[in-house]
Amino acid sequence: MENTQQPSGMPIHKYRPYHDQIDVPLTDRTWPDARITAAPRWCAVDLRDGNQALIDPMSPERKRIMFELLVAMGYKEIEVGFPSASQTDFDFVRQLIEDDLIPDDVTIQVLTQARAHLIERTYESIRGAKRAIVHLYNSTSVLQRDVVFRTDRQGIIDIALEGARLCREYEKRIPETRVFYEYSPESYTGTELDFAVDVCNQVLEVFEPTPDRKVIINLPATVEMATPNVYADSIEWMSRHLNHRDNVILSLHPHNDRGTAIAAAELGYMAGADRIEGCLFGNGERTGNVDLVALGINLLTQGIDPHIDFSDIDHVKRTVEYCNQLPVHERSPWAGDLVFTAFSGSHQDAIKKGFESMEARAAASGVDVDELDWAVPYLPIDPKDLGRSYEAVIRVNSQSGKGGVAYLLKSDHALDLPRRLQIEFSGVVQAKTDSDGGEVTSDQIWEVFTDEYLPSAVEQARWGRFELLATSTRSDMSGDVALEVTLRDGDRQFVASGHGNGPVAAFLEVVRAQGFDVTVYDYVEHALSSGGDAQAAAYIELQVDGERLWGVGIDGDISTASLKAIVSGVNRAIRARRAQEQLTAV
Amino acid sequence: MENTQQPSGMPIHKYRPYHDQIDVPLTDRTWPDARITAAPRWCAVDLRDGNQALIDPMSPERKRIMFELLVAMGYKEIEVGFPSASQTDFDFVRQLIEDDLIPDDVTIQVLTQARAHLIERTYESIRGAKRAIVHLYNSTSVLQRDVVFRTDRQGIIDIALEGARLCREYEKRIPETRVFYEYSPESYTGTELDFAVDVCNQVLEVFEPTPDRKVIINLPATVEMATPNVYADSIEWMSRHLNHRDNVILSLHPHNDRGTAIAAAELGYMAGADRIEGCLFGNGERTGNVDLVALGINLLTQGIDPHIDFSDIDHVKRTVEYCNQLPVHERSPWAGDLVFTAFSGSHQDAIKKGFESMEARAAASGVDVDELDWAVPYLPIDPKDLGRSYEAVIRVNSQSGKGGVAYLLKSDHALDLPRRLQIEFSGVVQAKTDSDGGEVTSDQIWEVFTDEYLPSAVEQARWGRFELLATSTRSDMSGDVALEVTLRDGDRQFVASGHGNGPVAAFLEVVRAQGFDVTVYDYVEHALSSGGDAQAAAYIELQVDGERLWGVGIDGDISTASLKAIVSGVNRAIRARRAQEQLTAV
Repeated sequence: MENTQQPSGMPIHKYRPYHDQIDVPLTDRTWPDARITAAPRWCAVDLRDGNQALIDPMSPERKRIMFELLVAMGYKEIEVGFPSASQTDFDFVRQLIEDDLIPDDVTIQVLTQARAHLIERTYESIRGAKRAIVHLYNSTSVLQRDVVFRTDRQGIIDIALEGARLCREYEKRIPETRVFYEYSPESYTGTELDFAVDVCNQVLEVFEPTPDRKVIINLPATVEMATPNVYADSIEWMSRHLNHRDNVILSLHPHNDRGTAIAAAELGYMAGADRIEGCLFGNGERTGNVDLVALGINLLTQGIDPHIDFSDIDHVKRTVEYCNQLPVHERSPWAGDLVFTAFSGSHQDAIKKGFESMEARAAASGVDVDELDWAVPYLPIDPKDLGRSYEAVIRVNSQSGKGGVAYLLKSDHALDLPRRLQIEFSGVVQAKTDSDGGEVTSDQIWEVFTDEYLPSAVEQARWGRFELLATSTRSDMSGDVALEVTLRDGDRQFVASGHGNGPVAAFLEVVRAQGFDVTVYDYVEHALSSGGDAQAAAYIELQVDGERLWGVGIDGDISTASLKAIVSGVNRAIRARRAQEQLTAV
Repeated sequence: MENTQQPSGMPIHKYRPYHDQIDVPLTDRTWPDARITAAPRWCAVDLRDGNQALIDPMSPERKRIMFELLVAMGYKEIEVGFPSASQTDFDFVRQLIEDDLIPDDVTIQVLTQARAHLIERTYESIRGAKRAIVHLYNSTSVLQRDVVFRTDRQGIIDIALEGARLCREYEKRIPETRVFYEYSPESYTGTELDFAVDVCNQVLEVFEPTPDRKVIINLPATVEMATPNVYADSIEWMSRHLNHRDNVILSLHPHNDRGTAIAAAELGYMAGADRIEGCLFGNGERTGNVDLVALGINLLTQGIDPHIDFSDIDHVKRTVEYCNQLPVHERSPWAGDLVFTAFSGSHQDAIKKGFESMEARAAASGVDVDELDWAVPYLPIDPKDLGRSYEAVIRVNSQSGKGGVAYLLKSDHALDLPRRLQIEFSGVVQAKTDSDGGEVTSDQIWEVFTDEYLPSAVEQARWGRFELLATSTRSDMSGDVALEVTLRDGDRQFVASGHGNGPVAAFLEVVRAQGFDVTVYDYVEHALSSGGDAQAAAYIELQVDGERLWGVGIDGDISTASLKAIVSGVNRAIRARRAQEQLTAV
């Protein structure tokens, strides 16, 4: 099979591969053998990097709600703004401090460019805080040196060092605040590694990291420019070449231009980083920052405590949507409306079996199902652990098979259809969805089911020829049962009787007397709930005048339910024959 | 700075790390050193895997539109349905064949489970096609063996081989169709590698791959269960252990549960795969399939031809949104509404400088700017290459600085503000956005600008005290210029004259005679367009009665524009003083 793909005509001549721009000289990498075993330090930058990228940046009220959400979830380092660049941000930082809104174990972080008047204003903003991280940055990339700053490497180092020294100066003005430092060589992914490490190491000398006062070196993928393994290589290289490594907290700040920020964060963390900056649901400039929700719940699925509370993910989602005024996508990892939804028939079938297997294992070992390892096909996490119900898991459309339909009938109506009946009924549903299109709700499935198998409650909708109005059985323990039934046949009522080794056999005699050739092929019944007054469901597979089909009966009396199921099957055969006759007549 | 993160209480005991479930025994991996140099074979599965996951699966009309879009973009292998599972899919495949809608270089692909009646129906669906790929699958994972199929390894192999043998049988019924094969060990990521390779190798013996009729072995991350490097390791391992490797097309099919499907596809491709299956914008079950748009454009940014036409990405997006009835998110890589948008002031400033630098380089080297390497900060690709305009690149909100405002005034009104004026005016804009909130459109910026600097066209809105109504200059070439101006001062008109070495100096004399202490600090002017009848803009930095500010004038006469700029500055000084007086009075 030859490959018939053709040149696209896209202007590839304008773009150079990353390795032609930045050399990442690591060949003895160790990160691909690393395994993540604990959560990184998190820093949530929703109120700064996220906020600056919103069409409608947060109002003070929305800022406050976001801050309280992040605190409630368990984030301990929160970048709350760029106070020297925005009066709103400045005022918000002041409000947090003056209204004493920062819990003792939470540290706020403020961003500032390495420019004198911005640094001064930054220190004004944090006056009175117990602790704060001053996050100093300047751009270091080849491109920014060239077109924005029009300076050489030394010029960029001077900007960084002057900024760092000013920080140390202003720090003295607010002795009541424990100031920690973070430095970012901004546009790191566009910066030569030898230069990036040089800038960072020189800044470290000014910030003087100690075990009690470690310094955060943050290496942002300001623009994501290469596959995530390359970012990981560069992080491992930097981790090896940074001075004072034991007193440095190596931090990642991946953006998502190529759609691989989550991978970059994970591989970079495996490569030696200690800390990750990101935003809930990946908000942020352009394609966003790395998604803290995905990173955290990814850890959970590996049995690692994320240190963050995701137990009510829908609340988190609604709050973030309110604050950001941007939707979380239907397919956003772990949180989107559709991520625990299976429409495919085979998926639904497997999910249903997975749930049943877990229940069986729990019953067999006598423990609660929540004590077991989670093991349901197509559901990598228990939706319940994120505060989501199973209701949304299985949804039915024209691509769905018996599994989804069966699941909904079971979960919403306690009906546990035998496998061949599942197949028969899903055909009925699919005929409807194929012609109408769209999703079928559980209510609609129930409507189709009752219309197809059960006597309608609505007088006009009574399509069946026969209806069972009364039964009485007599048994003399000889093994023979005498049955008397009152039946409605159209508008006519009549009483008939039959004999057999049980009520089903006796009723078949009655039915045969009405002129039908009936055989029973399969018979399943179950209670609809526990307790003596429970309803029972009976499913009977019949052959009626040569046609194989199922009937369903529901009644408080298990024996009556069986007879109703036979009536259901006979009525369906009559209806099918009439539909066929009408088709032939046309 | 101690880490104060706390245990979350999330039920981590329910989840086991991937490496406890599946062993990937590769330590001598080579893929981290690989570089992508050419596009993979693509297979678009929007009409099958994408479609089955829609709330409202595609109607026949929407299916047809999607198919035509995929063909137009350049996809040559298109999975068009699961015809044995859905009448709609079956009918669609028949329509494609009977209406001759499949181009000669495009191969359709149809999915079928390894079950006899489904395989038979699948071959009925493709009868008459010139070529078709029959994609056979059965689940092989530990979990599915356990809870769904309740069988052992041999049972699963039997299902696969029986399916494959049936395919070879039915193939004979449609000799006019060249049938190719794809086999997927479904739930591959949950399958032990030794078993996965065993199943695949046994299936290969049935399908008998040859150079002319290679067989596709597709290894789906049906559920994404680990970091993407682990998937890549497993792909490299499989690639080494598959028989007939030269005649096998190794295919990837990553899902996005952990949000790392794009990375998994890229690293898996580096690890030896030949082909990638995915959907446009990552539609598909749960969190979706891997996003073919991101993968393709990621290649373009590295100077690699994706073989797919992305030159009108908005058309692609609108069409997919129509077919899927699901939105593409604002931050979806390369295509979302916000991904080429910079709200941050420093980003905007750098982007503006990047554009200017490219123009300067083009002018200096005498080539079109499109011939140059693309190099604009924060824009990893030229939006124009995807058919998007620059208009949306820079948007202004309260987080924006001078760069964005300046960019919009330049691009929409040809005004190239001097740097210090940019700072002054962005303060005016920011004061407005900080109080009002929300985004500021280019029109609104222009409104603020004209209100602040230019004489209003609206009579009632004329806030300035002075207006220049007429000028005349006389020069006797002695170096002295005599200027006569007609001015309006409130409701009063008057004529005044002054002398100087040019009209600006002469006009300053006039202004000083009105009682203002005025000095000029900076002066910049430029034409608003080329040609003799162009308007000119003049920017003058003044000190008026001790206050430093800018004035702006626009006129067809460059000299008059300068005088207007001085009037603008004086009027602004008067307004600022009045505002201050009102504040003090209160």
